[in-house]
Parts: sequence; C-alpha cells; structure tokens
Amino acid sequence: MAVRAIVYERNGDPASVLRTVTFPPEPLSRKSIRVKVLLSLVNPSDLHVVHGSYAIQPDPREVDVNGKRKTVYLPGNEGLGEIAEVGPDVESLKSGDWVVFSKSQSGTWSSGQVLEEDDVIKIDEGSGISAVTAATLTVNPATAYKMLTSFVDLKPGDWIAQNAANSSAGQAVIQLASARGIHTINLIRKKDDFAKTERLLKDLGADVVLTYDDVADDERAREVVGDKEVRLLLDCVGGQGTKDTLRLASKGSHLVVYGSMAQEDLRLPPFLLIFKDIHVRGFWRTGWFNSSTLEERSKFLDELVQVMVNSKFKEPVHEIVKIEGTLSDEEATGKVQEIFERVNKGTGGTKIILEVETPRGF
Amino acid sequence: MAVRAIVYERNGDPASVLRTVTFPPEPLSRKSIRVKVLLSLVNPSDLHVVHGSYAIQPDPREVDVNGKRKTVYLPGNEGLGEIAEVGPDVESLKSGDWVVFSKSQSGTWSSGQVLEEDDVIKIDEGSGISAVTAATLTVNPATAYKMLTSFVDLKPGDWIAQNAANSSAGQAVIQLASARGIHTINLIRKKDDFAKTERLLKDLGADVVLTYDDVADDERAREVVGDKEVRLLLDCVGGQGTKDTLRLASKGSHLVVYGSMAQEDLRLPPFLLIFKDIHVRGFWRTGWFNSSTLEERSKFLDELVQVMVNSKFKEPVHEIVKIEGTLSDEEATGKVQEIFERVNKGTGGTKIILEVETPRGF
Repeated sequence: MAVRAIVYERNGDPASVLRTVTFPPEPLSRKSIRVKVLLSLVNPSDLHVVHGSYAIQPDPREVDVNGKRKTVYLPGNEGLGEIAEVGPDVESLKSGDWVVFSKSQSGTWSSGQVLEEDDVIKIDEGSGISAVTAATLTVNPATAYKMLTSFVDLKPGDWIAQNAANSSAGQAVIQLASARGIHTINLIRKKDDFAKTERLLKDLGADVVLTYDDVADDERAREVVGDKEVRLLLDCVGGQGTKDTLRLASKGSHLVVYGSMAQEDLRLPPFLLIFKDIHVRGFWRTGWFNSSTLEERSKFLDELVQVMVNSKFKEPVHEIVKIEGTLSDEEATGKVQEIFERVNKGTGGTKIILEVETPRGF
Repeated sequence: MAVRAIVYERNGDPASVLRTVTFPPEPLSRKSIRVKVLLSLVNPSDLHVVHGSYAIQPDPREVDVNGKRKTVYLPGNEGLGEIAEVGPDVESLKSGDWVVFSKSQSGTWSSGQVLEEDDVIKIDEGSGISAVTAATLTVNPATAYKMLTSFVDLKPGDWIAQNAANSSAGQAVIQLASARGIHTINLIRKKDDFAKTERLLKDLGADVVLTYDDVADDERAREVVGDKEVRLLLDCVGGQGTKDTLRLASKGSHLVVYGSMAQEDLRLPPFLLIFKDIHVRGFWRTGWFNSSTLEERSKFLDELVQVMVNSKFKEPVHEIVKIEGTLSDEEATGKVQEIFERVNKGTGGTKIILEVETPRGF
C-alpha cells in the first residue's frame, strides 16, 4: 500500500514549497507499527516549521519518488491515526486501535506512517470521543489542560486570566477550566464583532470577557479584579499584551508563557516581579511530551479525554479537506497549494483538517 | 537622652527635603528595646524612599520638635545598633548587644530608636565581624546570600551569571559565591577603566568578567558559555541588560530579578522561556524578611556572618560621615544637605555611612 505525503525539500512559504509525493510503503520492524492517518491538523506552528522559523524541524527522510532518491521533510504534527499493522513484538497496540501522535513532527500530513510503539498514544474510542476531537487533542486541549494542572494547584472557584482568549488554545482553556469549576477572565482584541466573540466565549464557559483596553492601566485592572484572587495567567501574546495581562495578577501568582503571537519580547515590569513575587515560566507542550514517559503521557491523555467527554467539550470549528486517492501527485500538489494559499489568507478561525487518502493505482 | 533623627515631612529630593530634628526620648514599654544606632547606611533604595518612588514608606511619626507637634518620616533602613536599654519582659537581648535592623524602614538615620524585640536581629560580636561589615549586612550580603541559596541548589563547581556585577550587591554575590566554590560570570558596562574593574572583581573572586557587548549576540554568548552549565542568573538591570544576560542561560535555569537600574521593563524573548524552560522570579529582601520568622532570619544571618568571617569578606569601600552631637539642628541639617548633594552627584562607588551622634546639651 503506497504512501502519499505532503513534503518540502527546502523551507519557505507553504503555498510554494509544499508538494505531494507518493512512495512505496516502508518495511515494518519487529517493534514498529504502521499507522493509517485518518485526520491531520494544519496548526500555526506547522506553518512556522515549513517556513523554518520554528525551534525544530522534522527529521530528513530519503524516499523514492518516481524511481529517484530524494531527501524530503514530512511536516504535520497532530492528527488521529488508526493502527493498520503491528510488528510481532508490539504488545500495547493492535490493528484498528485509534492513536494520536506524541512524537514531535511525526509527519501527519500523509496517508500513513511507520512509527515506533512509543511514538503514539492509544485513545479509547469507547469513551465516546469524536474523531475530530481526538484528532485535535494533543496540541490545544493538551496544552490548556497541562497548564491548568501543572503550575498552580487550582481549586473550584479559583480565578485565572488569559490573553488571546479567542485562539484555539484559549477556547480550550475556557472549556477545560469551566469543566473544573475554575473561573476565567479572558482578554481579546477590540474588534467590531466584540459582542459576537464575547457570546461565543461565554457559551464555552467564559466568566469575564474584556478587551486589552479594559486593563490598560492599573486602576481599571484593579476594578476588573476586585476581590478575586487571580492565581494563574496564561500568555500567548507577548509584548505589551503580556504587560496588560499581568495587571490582573495577584500576589504570588504564576504567569505561564506558551506562545508569542505579537512576535515581540515579553515586557515585564521588574518591580511587579519583585514586589508581587510573580513566577514566570514558559510552557512547551512538545518539550513536555519529549521529556515525559509514555505512561505519563497516556495517563494524562486518558484523564483529559475523560474530562472532555464528560464536559461535552465542543469540537473546534473546522473544515475537513480531502486529498483524494484518485488524484495524481501533480493534481494533489495543486490542491495542496490551493489549501495553503487559503490558509495564508486566513480561514477566520476555521481549523483546516487534512484527510490524505492512500493513493490508488500505484 | 534626646534623640536626633534625619527626617522629611514630604517626599522629594533628599538634598532638599531632609532635615535634622531633636526630640525627647520615647518611653520604653515592657517588651520594647532602646537601640543606639552606631552606623547607618545610605543605600540607593533609601533615596527612592525619600523621593517617594519606592514601594513602601516609613510609618509617619508624631514627634515634639521645639515644643511643636510634627508629623515626620524617619528614613534609613540598614545599620548597626547597640542595645542601650531593654523593657522588663525582653528576654533575648541585653544592654551592649549588637543588633541589625530587620524591620523595614526602622529609621536608622538617627541616633537611636525605640523598637520591639522582633524588629532587630542579634549579631554575634564574638564572631569577629567588623562594625562596618555588620552595619552593611542586611541589604547586599543578605540579598546575595539568599539568592544564591534559595532558587537553585547550587553545588561547588556550578556556574552562575549576573549583571551589574560591580554594584554592592554584585560584589557581595561574587564574594559569597566564591566562598561556596561557585563560579561566576560577571557582566559590567564597557568603560575606560574596564581593566581596573575587572581586576577589582577578580580580586573578590570573580571567574569571568565581561561587558554586555561580549554577550550581545547568541554566537558570542555561546562562546562565553562553552560547556558550562549556567544554572542561575541574577538581574538587577532590566531592559536590554536582562536580555543580554539571559543569553548565558542553560536549559531549565533560573533568572532572579532583584533590581532595575535601567528602570525599564524586562525584555524576555518568549521562545527562550518556552523552549529553554527558564524560570523567572523576583526577589525582594524586605518582602522576605517581612514574611519570615525572627528565628528564620536569625538562623540565616548567623550562617551568613559565619560564611563572611570565614571567607574574609571584604568591607565595601565606604566613608563614615559623622553628624556630631555638638551641632545644633540647623548646623546638622546643613551638613545633611551637603552629604546628600554629594550623594546626588555620585560617590563613585563609595558607600556613605552615617554616624548620627546623640545630641548634647538638650
């Protein structure tokens, strides 16, 4: 069964450098697994990977394309797979199992992959989790849930604050915090459709939705906070956005930085750190996955899936784009370029989910 | 025995708003102590207090000055005192004991104070510590030693880095780190007398002395670090200085911010926090003293005095300025204004230590 993959040979604009190639299936070793990729995500970090502006790159791979040996990179980090075949020494997985990808840069923008047993985490299909929710589990909900449970021992009734609250991760934070009885103050940009976004976030469980202007000075921030104790602040903006968010911090609270939409240095008033004893940490989901054991990751995802199913976690707004198995590589490449031209223009918050079918006739 | 104190009635430039007043001694309660101030420090933070730009102010006090009731503030935070008299219920202190001031803003720029037993910490004169070292103990060496021992479990042979290495606190860090076998990378400003400052800091025990230019880009910083693991970074500069210092950070290291000479927001590259898992904290010696018990503070200072005496800790370069008891308040005020005019111009690293004598003839 041939494999189709979206690949690049050099970094650059995804709409220009990505192409589709088809190559023969890799052999399976005793401990490896063959995974059919059911759904794979196009996340902002994937675009940085292709551009070459991310901290990591996929490993280079030598593949045969139309009889020629080529060195290519297979992007794609998140998705849902189904076990197609396991090596004779694989014990924890069997054909038909649903899995998500814990190995960073597994190359999920493809019809399938040969991986090691430890590179995936089994997802309990019987939990009632949907395929789309499972496919979108390991980046945003996992980031949100880990941040909510790792830095501060939050109890029901506690308050947190976050910026970029309308991002995918921000929306996951709102839902997962709400599921645990934790209240959220959510900062979003001032836009014409503020009321619409506020409604959307409140429907997800947000308690307070504000613009950055609402906390632009200490006095207004104090009014917002009132007698709430804001113990955790999640920052994915940087620059001035961090400074505005920090105005909501209570003494001894933790600021966790997990992204940098503004692509600017954080701005932290030193006296706030000194006199309010703010703890600042970065969080990188990939780094944590890499440094954890399979058992830790599995336990974490089991708990997360349980919380999500129990709290009726909403699927992200998405569009599934199929790369049909009947297309030639040339046709498929054309379709991929169209997709990434759309992604470059912005999809208005709609997540693009790829479904790369196994190519036929090879 | 009358008390002479340097006071202000309103915030402002110390050379303008400070004056000297003499008032009758306060009565002693059963649990209070009368402390004669032997030496008191003029620290940069004291100037901020008088200017009104510091997080805290001394408590206002009503004192009789020439028969008139006045509300004044008594600045002065650090110094060495000698117990002159104790209330009948005071058990831990006796006349003649040396003490340092743990209560924030005790008003050490005076000839004496009535305080509570818990407001001071006894210093073992028998340890061989000099009066000047004891008088300059609670701000810089205490800050340095607490930062070296609280955030990272440093072992002999470990490396730390700091900026503003030539400051009083920086010099204390070098000496105390060296006393524990910890290596230091020290950043200072590029100046004509770099070689002289480098020599001074190396004489104190510095391993590496560099200018900010030497770590101004990642490549140069990597060369400096080599295979050293820099586990703790001490920042008292802010702004770009923080960013330059952070280039020396190893993965998982701790940045502790304890001052802000540049008076600018810290600039922290978010991806450094995220991918290198840098922990950022503020440290405020006063806040820690306030939140600790007398027993904790005493134990800490006993240990610090021991380390300082054993390692032949060098007294800071200083000048003792006496406000003679024979001066009238008017004359003494003139002298105080002269002193603070000199302080405003900068004393070139020489610490001004006040010795306010008990006024005679009152």
